[in-house]
Amino acid sequence: MYKIVNKDGNAKSATFSTVHGEIQTPVFMNVATVAAIKGGVSTRDLEDIGTQVVLSNTYHLHLRPGDDLVYRMGGLHKFMSCNKPILTDSGGFQVFSLAKTRKIKEEGVYFHSHIDGHKLFMGPEESMRIQSHLGSTIAMAFDECPSAKAEHEYVQMSVDRTTRWLERCKKEMDRLNGLRYTVNPHQMLFGINQGAIFNDIRIEHAKRIADMDLDGYAVGGLAVGESHEEMYDVLEHVVPFLPEDKPTYLMGVGTPANILEAVDRGVDFFDCVYPSRNGRHGHLYTKRGHINILNARYELDDTPIEEGCQCPACRSYSKAYIRHLLKAGEMLGMRLCVLHNLYFYNNLVKEIREAIRSNNYQAYKKKTLESMSEFDSVISSESYNIARNWRKG
Amino acid sequence: MYKIVNKDGNAKSATFSTVHGEIQTPVFMNVATVAAIKGGVSTRDLEDIGTQVVLSNTYHLHLRPGDDLVYRMGGLHKFMSCNKPILTDSGGFQVFSLAKTRKIKEEGVYFHSHIDGHKLFMGPEESMRIQSHLGSTIAMAFDECPSAKAEHEYVQMSVDRTTRWLERCKKEMDRLNGLRYTVNPHQMLFGINQGAIFNDIRIEHAKRIADMDLDGYAVGGLAVGESHEEMYDVLEHVVPFLPEDKPTYLMGVGTPANILEAVDRGVDFFDCVYPSRNGRHGHLYTKRGHINILNARYELDDTPIEEGCQCPACRSYSKAYIRHLLKAGEMLGMRLCVLHNLYFYNNLVKEIREAIRSNNYQAYKKKTLESMSEFDSVISSESYNIARNWRKG
Repeated sequence: MYKIVNKDGNAKSATFSTVHGEIQTPVFMNVATVAAIKGGVSTRDLEDIGTQVVLSNTYHLHLRPGDDLVYRMGGLHKFMSCNKPILTDSGGFQVFSLAKTRKIKEEGVYFHSHIDGHKLFMGPEESMRIQSHLGSTIAMAFDECPSAKAEHEYVQMSVDRTTRWLERCKKEMDRLNGLRYTVNPHQMLFGINQGAIFNDIRIEHAKRIADMDLDGYAVGGLAVGESHEEMYDVLEHVVPFLPEDKPTYLMGVGTPANILEAVDRGVDFFDCVYPSRNGRHGHLYTKRGHINILNARYELDDTPIEEGCQCPACRSYSKAYIRHLLKAGEMLGMRLCVLHNLYFYNNLVKEIREAIRSNNYQAYKKKTLESMSEFDSVISSESYNIARNWRKG
Repeated sequence: MYKIVNKDGNAKSATFSTVHGEIQTPVFMNVATVAAIKGGVSTRDLEDIGTQVVLSNTYHLHLRPGDDLVYRMGGLHKFMSCNKPILTDSGGFQVFSLAKTRKIKEEGVYFHSHIDGHKLFMGPEESMRIQSHLGSTIAMAFDECPSAKAEHEYVQMSVDRTTRWLERCKKEMDRLNGLRYTVNPHQMLFGINQGAIFNDIRIEHAKRIADMDLDGYAVGGLAVGESHEEMYDVLEHVVPFLPEDKPTYLMGVGTPANILEAVDRGVDFFDCVYPSRNGRHGHLYTKRGHINILNARYELDDTPIEEGCQCPACRSYSKAYIRHLLKAGEMLGMRLCVLHNLYFYNNLVKEIREAIRSNNYQAYKKKTLESMSEFDSVISSESYNIARNWRKG
């Protein structure tokens, strides 16, 4: 199911076979929160931008339109007309980051909807049932994501509970996959390593979940406030204790530099909202660094965002046109920027794959990081906060 | 340049050769106000939805990004990467409908920008120069569009001035087309018939402008508050006095029924914001009438907006999915609805052409109008005002 094609140092490149098609890794999963990529991008656009895997959000879809509706529509693939693998997160992260007044108990989490405030409960079984309704290719285990600032004692207690929740997830997923009317009887389950920035807890936890023979393993609870150096340190310590012969997924990460560094530490699955969110604000990725298309210097620039880029925006439109569209508040401006940024990320991991498979990863990484620093000076005061992080490494 | 392929009663179907390609009429021009079709639709989508001609707005582009910028970018075709004919309106209608505190004089109109209030002037020469900068395929003459409620005396005075303005437009356009660095030296000019609902003024005006040997003739100042019956009455009286061997353009009209009726009175060019504006509000056109996709009855509807429709939305997505997207405020919902509606309009005029060319127009019109009434009952109280007019005839 998961076959390593080549290793170059710790960087690994594999093929991962799923019931919805084969994934080449390293892979960047494109975020479609409520069954649509923000910025007016549809599943008909995915071939054009090189998307391999779509990621949707269990919490959001549970609230709207409701996973029972998606189930009755035949599952997420049919609902959003998607013929590629889809990964759903467990809802855990959103329960902890978006929901109001949450209360964590052994059975799960009591919380209030961030949309209308109504009372909800989600535990491991509920998360699995929702994801089974959605019928995603890969389901994520329900976990608690403690704050990067949490105390050692709390984190230890939380991670122990997350392990117990994982056992319940696995049991429930096995049961659901055996049901007669399940959408996807081959639904896979990835476990999630937690432990904040405490390597002792992380390593102990990694060992415990590695024994459970899951379909893949994620490192969660990073990119939530710790420094990049702390994140890389955690990866260096914990990835060696996760099964190499399974997918290794770093959740919610990150900048192009983050991805290059994490690949170097054995990670091969990624997802992040940066390309679509930054795109909607006119922050665009290029091989020479990021640019803010609203900058006055692009007013009369009739060249594409990046020369030679094969994305649907660069193949037809100039910076001047896209800048005009954003200035005028035209939806098309956002769509073109998101298409470009997603293409950039998908193409970045494609180049990473090629570099690993030709044993050239270190040289590729060095060259790419150096090249990306060229445009730093362009970041204007207009810049949207999130964009500031994009190239930090 | 303009060749009638067939006439069926008063309905005419022609081919119109332009420097940017051949137009088959009757044609529906797709509105791209500020060089983009609202709803995230790009020129890359035009083949998919059957667009023949794009219409952009001189007033809007003059204010933002500025016609001098478009000129420096090589004209509108290059700026928006469009290889189809583009018609630009004269800016007159927007000056009269959007601008603040306008003052009409013999030389032109003094007004304030609706964006930032700064003082502007536009007369026939200014309108021609802006449109020449834009380099559209077809420029429209600068005219005054008097209110449907205006008195006979005022309308007569206004129309006389519009005639004098037209003479100035023609002279200026000839001069501009001869300049060395003009974007499109083959830019065509259409004149506009005015006269509110006074047939005597309209007919007299039609005769005067018909003598001027322009590239096409529009009927303006309709669909601005008068009844549909009044509009049809004007067409019946005035179209016979416009040259049959030139394009006959009914500006800003309208509903599918309006188009069917106007074609029957000799019109073969149309434009209207309805399909894109209604689409953004979830009001969708079908052969059986219009539907409001937000209606609860579509919550679990896994069929396309219209069975058999070949638009990019219907080929892949269900009503339930599109409804969910609009409910969730996803841009993609609006894009899919606009793509469907524009396809519907472009396909409607395609069917009209086929009916005229096979001498079957009366039967086609009758059948289509009857069929479109089926879904009337669906219009819910949620409906957006504009949508109410869509099928009125």
